[in-house]
Formats: sequence, C-alpha cells, structure tokens
Amino acid sequence: MDITQFVEGSIGQWKSQRSAHHMIFSHFEAVRSEIDIVALTPDNPAVIELCQAYDIDPSQAVVPFQMSWEGESDWNDEVLTGSTILVPIPDPNSPDRGQLLRDRGYAETMAAAARYHITEDGVFVLITEYDRAAAEERIWFVNPNLRFRVSTIKTSDGTGVVTASFSSELRAMATP
Amino acid sequence: MDITQFVEGSIGQWKSQRSAHHMIFSHFEAVRSEIDIVALTPDNPAVIELCQAYDIDPSQAVVPFQMSWEGESDWNDEVLTGSTILVPIPDPNSPDRGQLLRDRGYAETMAAAARYHITEDGVFVLITEYDRAAAEERIWFVNPNLRFRVSTIKTSDGTGVVTASFSSELRAMATP
Repeated sequence: MDITQFVEGSIGQWKSQRSAHHMIFSHFEAVRSEIDIVALTPDNPAVIELCQAYDIDPSQAVVPFQMSWEGESDWNDEVLTGSTILVPIPDPNSPDRGQLLRDRGYAETMAAAARYHITEDGVFVLITEYDRAAAEERIWFVNPNLRFRVSTIKTSDGTGVVTASFSSELRAMATP
Repeated sequence: MDITQFVEGSIGQWKSQRSAHHMIFSHFEAVRSEIDIVALTPDNPAVIELCQAYDIDPSQAVVPFQMSWEGESDWNDEVLTGSTILVPIPDPNSPDRGQLLRDRGYAETMAAAARYHITEDGVFVLITEYDRAAAEERIWFVNPNLRFRVSTIKTSDGTGVVTASFSSELRAMATP
C-alpha cells in the first residue's frame, strides 16, 4: 500500500463512531460524525498556496485531498465541525514515507506539518509534533468500506498519554 | 519484539477502558475492567493438560500465562468476569508466528486455537476462527505501562464486521 492507494481508498463519505478515553479521568467520550473526503487536483490554488507556505515545490505534491467533518459528542453539546486540506509530499527516496501538509491541525489552529509512513501491513502512521504535545494516528482498512483509526495525544516529551481514541469509519452508501 | 518479550511485558495488573462499537446498531458500549496477567511455569499441570488436549508436545510451549478479568459494562448490569490459560506455541521455523492455545475463548466456551504473528513494528496480531465468526485482535504497547488492543468480530466468511472494540490498558500501580 502506498500513499496514493491509501488516499484513493479513503475518498468518499464515512459514518464515524469515535470513542475517546481520557486517561487521567478514566472518562469515556462518544462522538458520532460524518466525514467527507474529496480529491483535489494538484493545480488547486489552495494546494499550491499550502505548498508555498511550507516552501515546498507544488510539483512534489501527490493526491491532495480535503477532509470535512460534522459531529456530535456526548460530553458537551457542541457541534464539532471543520474542514482541512491535506497534501502528501512523499520523500524522494522512500515512497512509503513523507510529510503531510495541513492548513490546520485538529488540536491547534496554526498550520502543522506532520510526518507519515506506511507499515508493511498497510497501517498509515501519522505523527504531528505541536508545541506542548504530540499526536500519533494509526489508520488502516479492515475492508474497502471500513477504516479504523487509533489516535493518541501525548505530552511533547513522550512520557504521558493524555487521550487515546478509536474511530470506526464505515463507508456511507456502500455498494448495495 | 518476539512472543517472549511481548508476554513478559504484559505480566502485571492492568486497568482497562474498553469501548465497543456495535456496527449494525451504531451503538457505543463502555466497559471498565481490571485484568491480571500472571506467568505460569511450563510444568504447570494445566499447561501440560492444555497442550495434550491439542496433541502438542508440552516442550514446545513458551511463556504460558493466565489472564483473569473482572469488569462492568454500561450496557447491562452483568459483571463480566473470567479467567483463561494461554499457551504460545511458536512455529519451529519462524519465531514471530505460531499458535496460541486457550482453554476457552472470549466468545464461546469451547476450546479455541488461534494463530498469532508479530508485525515488524511490534503489533501482536491474533486471529481466532470460530464456527460462525472470526475474531481478530491487534495488541501493541504505546509504552511499557500502556497497551492498546483493537478487536474485531467478523462473520466467518469475512464480509461483515459485527463489532469493533478498542481497549486502553494502563498498568495498575506503575512505578511511582
């Protein structure tokens, strides 16, 4: 599995169930959301602008995409909604790893660059370093219509895991 | 990571938060439990008996252990409690895979043999085939005091995923 196959398999609409375990309080949080992942063309102005913001030649970008989500948590009444553009930049010498540019992170509003790699058994691993925290996501396909996502938020020194969460993402309107 | 390191790292008492996603009903279930994993000696009569039940020479067994759990689900008032003996039997020619004997499964009361392998990035993968279902567990260490476990129950033909669950297991009484 390479980044192109991974992103192409992810295009579509997904119904997500997410469970977050807040480790310190031993609290469970349940989130239901809809996620839309759409392909963008490499010549999309927002893709080019994002590459330029990171000082990267836009011709290095592969399979850029946009992810939008709208969800509800049982922890508070807030509607969780957002959208982000993601641009993979594979390493020239190793196609199974690279950078993932984003116009904003989940946890902070500043632009965040993240490192990804894909393991030999097809798990997409994404590591994002923030000022005071680090996030790791592991995403894999159980079958073409079901993705699992395990996310971990750690303190930036790597010692403490603050939140662990698990999403099962089922393709909406799967082939009948 | 080999099976001996994996089991030795698992010995101890764990506080588990488990979230199950029942896919058909889009239902969330939350389970809190305590898990005890203790090492057994290879000459333990229960270990020898289990090997014999599978027609396996007990000298092939490595790091046998016992796992006990006691938990509570928010779905019903039932107390979930149980105990099982597990005996790894590595393949003679590939130390990163083998059979895992159990005196009973999670889902059924009959004895179940399962196949395991350990991926290059240290994920212990266990596949158990039942009459009408198959279970896959992926377990890995985030750090020595935190294990993640993702379990999937599928119909035996592999098409339908019935339940997906995620456990975060935090070592109880970690080094202060």
